[in-house]
Amino acid sequence: MERVVQCVPNFSEGKDQALIEKIVEPLKNQEGFALVSYEPDKDYNRTVVTLLGDPDAMKEPLIRFVQKAEELIDMNEHSGEHPRMGAVDVLPFIPISGIDMDTCVDIAHAMGKNIAETLKIPVFMYAEASVQKGRKRLPSIRKGEFEGMKDKIKKNKWHPDYGSPEIHPTFGAMAVGARLPLIAYNIDLNTENMDIAKKIARAIRGSSGGFKHVQAGPVFLEERGHVQVTMNILNYKQNPIYRILETVKMEAARYGVAVPSSEIVGLIPKDTILRSLKYYSDRAGQTLDEDVDMQTIAKLAAKHLGFRDFDEKKIIEANIRRKA
Amino acid sequence: MERVVQCVPNFSEGKDQALIEKIVEPLKNQEGFALVSYEPDKDYNRTVVTLLGDPDAMKEPLIRFVQKAEELIDMNEHSGEHPRMGAVDVLPFIPISGIDMDTCVDIAHAMGKNIAETLKIPVFMYAEASVQKGRKRLPSIRKGEFEGMKDKIKKNKWHPDYGSPEIHPTFGAMAVGARLPLIAYNIDLNTENMDIAKKIARAIRGSSGGFKHVQAGPVFLEERGHVQVTMNILNYKQNPIYRILETVKMEAARYGVAVPSSEIVGLIPKDTILRSLKYYSDRAGQTLDEDVDMQTIAKLAAKHLGFRDFDEKKIIEANIRRKA
Repeated sequence: MERVVQCVPNFSEGKDQALIEKIVEPLKNQEGFALVSYEPDKDYNRTVVTLLGDPDAMKEPLIRFVQKAEELIDMNEHSGEHPRMGAVDVLPFIPISGIDMDTCVDIAHAMGKNIAETLKIPVFMYAEASVQKGRKRLPSIRKGEFEGMKDKIKKNKWHPDYGSPEIHPTFGAMAVGARLPLIAYNIDLNTENMDIAKKIARAIRGSSGGFKHVQAGPVFLEERGHVQVTMNILNYKQNPIYRILETVKMEAARYGVAVPSSEIVGLIPKDTILRSLKYYSDRAGQTLDEDVDMQTIAKLAAKHLGFRDFDEKKIIEANIRRKA
Repeated sequence: MERVVQCVPNFSEGKDQALIEKIVEPLKNQEGFALVSYEPDKDYNRTVVTLLGDPDAMKEPLIRFVQKAEELIDMNEHSGEHPRMGAVDVLPFIPISGIDMDTCVDIAHAMGKNIAETLKIPVFMYAEASVQKGRKRLPSIRKGEFEGMKDKIKKNKWHPDYGSPEIHPTFGAMAVGARLPLIAYNIDLNTENMDIAKKIARAIRGSSGGFKHVQAGPVFLEERGHVQVTMNILNYKQNPIYRILETVKMEAARYGVAVPSSEIVGLIPKDTILRSLKYYSDRAGQTLDEDVDMQTIAKLAAKHLGFRDFDEKKIIEANIRRKA
């Protein structure tokens, strides 16, 4: 089976388009993976790159990409709203299909070691690839940012996982890691009552006792004229979409509010949808053919999970087949 | 409104019945609260006492009870299976009705201060009454037990919240706190398949991403011939019974398994039941009269929550009315 990972490096330039093009140059038109997008944000002064494909094919181009950033960005002159500690700030590997988390952790470590050795950039391993206590969450590692990292990295507790305990003078330091894909998911409530959305968000989100990997809040959609529970799902395996959706329906029932639809923001891995579709086929005593085509999956997701404005292009794997 | 707290001191004698009677003597036949039970466990060599009623009325008798334990128990000679650090090991206050958690925290602090000053026993404040980092969970405080506490308490990090940083030579140290009642709740599944109970337990419990305050596991009931999801609910306000029950039904549906009933082990506060009954009356568009008598509450709980072998005697407040 073909191995597909998503790789989402963030680098610290979001204004100068010519510079941005030079930095992403090594990632363009490569064999084995696709440069799906690179989206600069001027206020953040930061660009989010999305790669999709074979992790082996990404190795060399990613090193050359980091090297370009090292040559072209001087963090001493960088400012922007988003917290950052390096010219390439963070580089996570995300298992999509045919590959497990453990393998992504190994890939991240090989990459971190390689960057530290060839480019003299100190690297912290984070998320699932974290090996030291207190380094799981990126904000903890990045606290103090580029400016504070000069002293922070010299302390025993903050020596990098790869490289010397001193920042690169112009690049700073970077974080390399592995994590599950983040699912941005919103559930529509057929009411204008924000209080109901608030109460339901509180029932499902981890911070108030609900599902551990769900961050949720209420939002009013001005143009559509109804409220939503808007959320990020940080672990769709432990907190599958169907369970969250059914719990929201169960809670909404006490307010006499219908749940007509829901929506995925951005892309979603096929596995995330299949896991939830399987719940509905199980419940109906039917068998789900997991080899169905993307169009059929999209249709079933619209039917059972109420995904609106959804088609196969929002499934990550459909994307790579078209672009790779 | 009458203020009712539950107070559940545990003391380190579970074998010598004559000694046990002497220690609980100050708690018998008092005005304003009931000594609901005291249950010695020989293997643990420990007795769990349950008081119910007005916290003001408990103050003096509790001090005399701790003093009795101080006079009659020498921890240097104590052994038992349950971890312990003092002659009275732990003393939690639990809000039941007409009183909130903040007030229980205040009561716990006044009690801890009083014990430390009058009896020269070092006191750690735990659970909701905890004021120092790392002292929320009892096992962390108690680690090392009586034998290790002699040195542990001298370290800056483990100075007690009240009293001097040295153990009482024969009593040891104790923990005083405030917490929500723990609800022991089991949901019956109409199957003998343990694997299904395992999967459902995993879906709902906090440790695997489910509801934060739920500890759950699978169990096979030999005599009844079916499996159960057995659980402790540590915070019934954030994780109400109805939500857990409905989620279990939703999960069970995919296995074609019915959820015919559930059961409460021990006692349950009226408020816990009312919160969940309100879900079902809301959903039916009806109004729940919260002033209904205990018998009616018990009947509604059997109907909507499927409580089996349940009657009003299992409601804490019904208990105090009969015994106080």
